[in-house]
Amino acid sequence: MDRRQFVKSAGIGAAASASLAAPAIAQSAPEVKWRLASSFPKSLDTLFASSEVFAKAVAEMTDNKFQIQVFASGEIVPGLQALDATTNGTVEMCHTACYYYLGKDPTFALLTGMPFGLNARMADAWFTHLGGNELANDFLKKYNVIGFPGGSTNAQMGGWYRKEIRDVADLQGLKFRVGGFAGRILSKLGVVPQQTAASDIYPSLEKGTIDAVEWVGPYDDEKLGLYKVAKYYYYPAWWEGASMIHNLINLEKWNELPKSYQAVVRTASAMQNDWLGSRYDSLNPGALKRLVAAGTQLRPFPQPVMEAAYKAANEVYAEVTAANPDFKKIYDSVVATRADQYLWWQVAEYTYDTFMIRTRARGG
Amino acid sequence: MDRRQFVKSAGIGAAASASLAAPAIAQSAPEVKWRLASSFPKSLDTLFASSEVFAKAVAEMTDNKFQIQVFASGEIVPGLQALDATTNGTVEMCHTACYYYLGKDPTFALLTGMPFGLNARMADAWFTHLGGNELANDFLKKYNVIGFPGGSTNAQMGGWYRKEIRDVADLQGLKFRVGGFAGRILSKLGVVPQQTAASDIYPSLEKGTIDAVEWVGPYDDEKLGLYKVAKYYYYPAWWEGASMIHNLINLEKWNELPKSYQAVVRTASAMQNDWLGSRYDSLNPGALKRLVAAGTQLRPFPQPVMEAAYKAANEVYAEVTAANPDFKKIYDSVVATRADQYLWWQVAEYTYDTFMIRTRARGG
Repeated sequence: MDRRQFVKSAGIGAAASASLAAPAIAQSAPEVKWRLASSFPKSLDTLFASSEVFAKAVAEMTDNKFQIQVFASGEIVPGLQALDATTNGTVEMCHTACYYYLGKDPTFALLTGMPFGLNARMADAWFTHLGGNELANDFLKKYNVIGFPGGSTNAQMGGWYRKEIRDVADLQGLKFRVGGFAGRILSKLGVVPQQTAASDIYPSLEKGTIDAVEWVGPYDDEKLGLYKVAKYYYYPAWWEGASMIHNLINLEKWNELPKSYQAVVRTASAMQNDWLGSRYDSLNPGALKRLVAAGTQLRPFPQPVMEAAYKAANEVYAEVTAANPDFKKIYDSVVATRADQYLWWQVAEYTYDTFMIRTRARGG
Repeated sequence: MDRRQFVKSAGIGAAASASLAAPAIAQSAPEVKWRLASSFPKSLDTLFASSEVFAKAVAEMTDNKFQIQVFASGEIVPGLQALDATTNGTVEMCHTACYYYLGKDPTFALLTGMPFGLNARMADAWFTHLGGNELANDFLKKYNVIGFPGGSTNAQMGGWYRKEIRDVADLQGLKFRVGGFAGRILSKLGVVPQQTAASDIYPSLEKGTIDAVEWVGPYDDEKLGLYKVAKYYYYPAWWEGASMIHNLINLEKWNELPKSYQAVVRTASAMQNDWLGSRYDSLNPGALKRLVAAGTQLRPFPQPVMEAAYKAANEVYAEVTAANPDFKKIYDSVVATRADQYLWWQVAEYTYDTFMIRTRARGG
């Protein structure tokens, strides 16, 4: 007999059935306290802050009965171990970029976004309506977690370079601090990918131990001060046309939640997804103007560099899809979505934006 | 004494403290039933369906204690009276396009999106982080409602035309079924804007009573069957680079909600916002392919037509801002946001999309 049946049947005043009814209430709105490990430092009032916004919404919606405490990178575990801490239950959930874990399986990279992949709006459509979430979670269950999109960075910048990149030859021997999958692609073009901890990026670039660094976009990059030690700021990051960050949740902890709290987490994640991407858009223009005012030279990657990278990316995809069925399954879905999406994008959205950009350039 | 008060007190077993504890619980999770008037028909499994998704999330998150019943256009009030029904409390809330009400005040048009205004991602940034929501609600309180973004259509198509539009002269005398603000702009170019109810659109276009019709985009347009009676499908809808649909809520009903339910409505609206835009993106490519396969001729508006419309739009804005301080306040904010946003958009996002579109066109 559930609580509602009880109330209907008992009306008021039946002490015996009252003791049956109480546990049902406890179950539907229990006090739950979770810990969330963010892969990001507190200084990022974009990525890190989005988890605080998420946790606040969860608390507000449950009258503070479901509380999620947010920990920055390094407070419980290092940022790059957020998944492991969630898999093994050290924390109930994390906010992280799946591509940090491509050393375990390159399939992880596809959940964040692949080089020359979907842009931010397309990624949203893929995850929400075109099977992306289901494919992601089929894969993630191997790691004892369930995931929900928790915000995109949108298209990123291609990074800071001490010297200009005029042609593909300029990539030869370039010591470039860049993440895993893009690094693998770039190494086909002669780049020497570097792993550099966030705190070492500035001094390494200043000393010339590394030649170039990619991070996120104008607003986050400005905080690292890279414009003071590298003059050229290239775009776009063809390896991150969008980067989707995930909320990953330990599967046992997820299954223990009442259905209402599961809905709260799902819905708050969707809100966070909306919040983070739009926050980047709101902050990047001002940062870009400040960077240019400080002497930063904006440069598009030359077309031959883009094309060489595209060719190298497809070579890498051919290698990985041949070896890894999980990767192939998700890759095929992303590639089919990309073809459809750009067919549509180039019609209404792209022509609208083109007109607005040209009009603006003419001072309109 | 309501059911929750009883259960809680009986569980503890002490009649005296029960009467103290009970009210707090009743206040925090009461049974609430609302009615939502959608401005859209059930056949739109995009706009209308998004309200069902919203209501389902609200119910799930509150263990079905907060239930919102969704009514289609015409079930309680006609779609274009959804705001009035909310203002006067006939329904607690509605899902509607604010620009339907520009007859009351042209300022309403800015809340949906203005011709040559922000694209969908920019609108999100404006509403969420750049003061848009606050400006909107300062204005909306005059109508006794509070609003939250509840989904965008993204950039729309420019509509269906029986004859080609080769130059500005072809607009002269064109009987075009088009909404209020765009109609006012187009009438400066000789267009004769038509008000045609949804059910009359197809026969009017077939008979030639009207020459052209704009509706939404490929997926919604396909349902109206317009491709059977007008061959030319133009893009983009420069008057709807994005259209934000709103959840509008009666202010007294909003203020009566417990804080937790207010958070539930806010968060579910953000989820709905994410859901609807990505649903359009997921459905439009397939519809576009089917329309083209059925003989539809896709045409971009000629550049002189776009430029003439842009000039006419600015003339209208000059007229309205001079006459209406509410309009001017929001218009100035949108225009400042547009300048900043396109400055940034043209760098990372636009160059990324440009490369992907050109590569796709070459079969890459």
